Amino acid sequence: MSTRRVAGPEIEKLIQLLSKLPGLGPRSARRAALHLIQKKDQLLRPLAEAMGIAVEHVGICSTCGTVDTCDPCSICADSRRDPATLIVVEDVSDLWALERAGTMNCHYHVLGGRLSPLDGIGPDDLNIKKLVERVDQGQIKEVVLAVNATVEGQTTAHYITDMLVDCKNVHVSRLAHGVPVGGELDYLDEGTLAQALRARTKF
Amino acid sequence: MSTRRVAGPEIEKLIQLLSKLPGLGPRSARRAALHLIQKKDQLLRPLAEAMGIAVEHVGICSTCGTVDTCDPCSICADSRRDPATLIVVEDVSDLWALERAGTMNCHYHVLGGRLSPLDGIGPDDLNIKKLVERVDQGQIKEVVLAVNATVEGQTTAHYITDMLVDCKNVHVSRLAHGVPVGGELDYLDEGTLAQALRARTKF
Repeated sequence: MSTRRVAGPEIEKLIQLLSKLPGLGPRSARRAALHLIQKKDQLLRPLAEAMGIAVEHVGICSTCGTVDTCDPCSICADSRRDPATLIVVEDVSDLWALERAGTMNCHYHVLGGRLSPLDGIGPDDLNIKKLVERVDQGQIKEVVLAVNATVEGQTTAHYITDMLVDCKNVHVSRLAHGVPVGGELDYLDEGTLAQALRARTKF
Repeated sequence: MSTRRVAGPEIEKLIQLLSKLPGLGPRSARRAALHLIQKKDQLLRPLAEAMGIAVEHVGICSTCGTVDTCDPCSICADSRRDPATLIVVEDVSDLWALERAGTMNCHYHVLGGRLSPLDGIGPDDLNIKKLVERVDQGQIKEVVLAVNATVEGQTTAHYITDMLVDCKNVHVSRLAHGVPVGGELDYLDEGTLAQALRARTKF
């Protein structure tokens, strides 16, 4: 930021906080702040209120680990969802992405990250103990490991599979690998193509 | 947004409002909302407070048209600035950019846009009348037209020059055209290069 004050410290503070949002740098934070100030009633006031409400009411679901305004969250509390299937995701954003896909009407478990020894993230830093407890209750028949297809995601998947090996009558599955829908083969890496060929299905 | 509720309506509302910020789309708004919620005390709470303060205290300076928490703004009220020079800009963001450059310690006038007949923006929609009043008071000796080097910016500059023609003892100047500092000639357009050659200076 500039060393000269171009506006009151209140505006500088707003810009500085906005620049901490992912996707906004110092320049776009200034643009966003100006946009907010110039649309005070249409945008700044409702956004300030929405954030105030989020500060007061949003928390972590003690069952699945997602964020919501109620605990248990609206997904855990939804009795129309299949209680026998549990999808394990790394982050809340992955849960939201799968919900947008809208294929499965089931429950979730948010790990809150992935095993990463290099970053010092071990099993105790993730929401794994609670996952084993949930599966141990016996109602869950299938655990879908919807972790990222990265080395760390796959390590996490293997660790969880090992932890669940003693739980009887529970299938552990993972997402299919293959060609993204709408994707062009020319742009895909060899690993994905090889997997897509190996796992080819009847047309 | 999804038709399925993945979280409470409060979170959906927050995402929807964040997606209206320039630089954030629906996807990055979700990421930003999640980041805010997960950093509640470090980021969400202070940002909500900063926005609340901005809602209450930030307004338009009745002299120059910039945004600030006081009126006249901190620039207009700064007696250490040269009262004889006035820089005319299209938007507050341009004022901030020039202040960051930090070359001139003078006053500003924010037009709040540019003449654009196609968009139905005429002289009455801009803060031009107030500009002529300020110049008419006689203290200003030079008006620097720091408008964008676009067709609309230049049209606006010509219009303002015409409006100020009756103001005696006032120089009207414009920003220099030329090669941006750090710029490579190969990437510059012909018009800029031609202007940089015509306006060449002694080395």
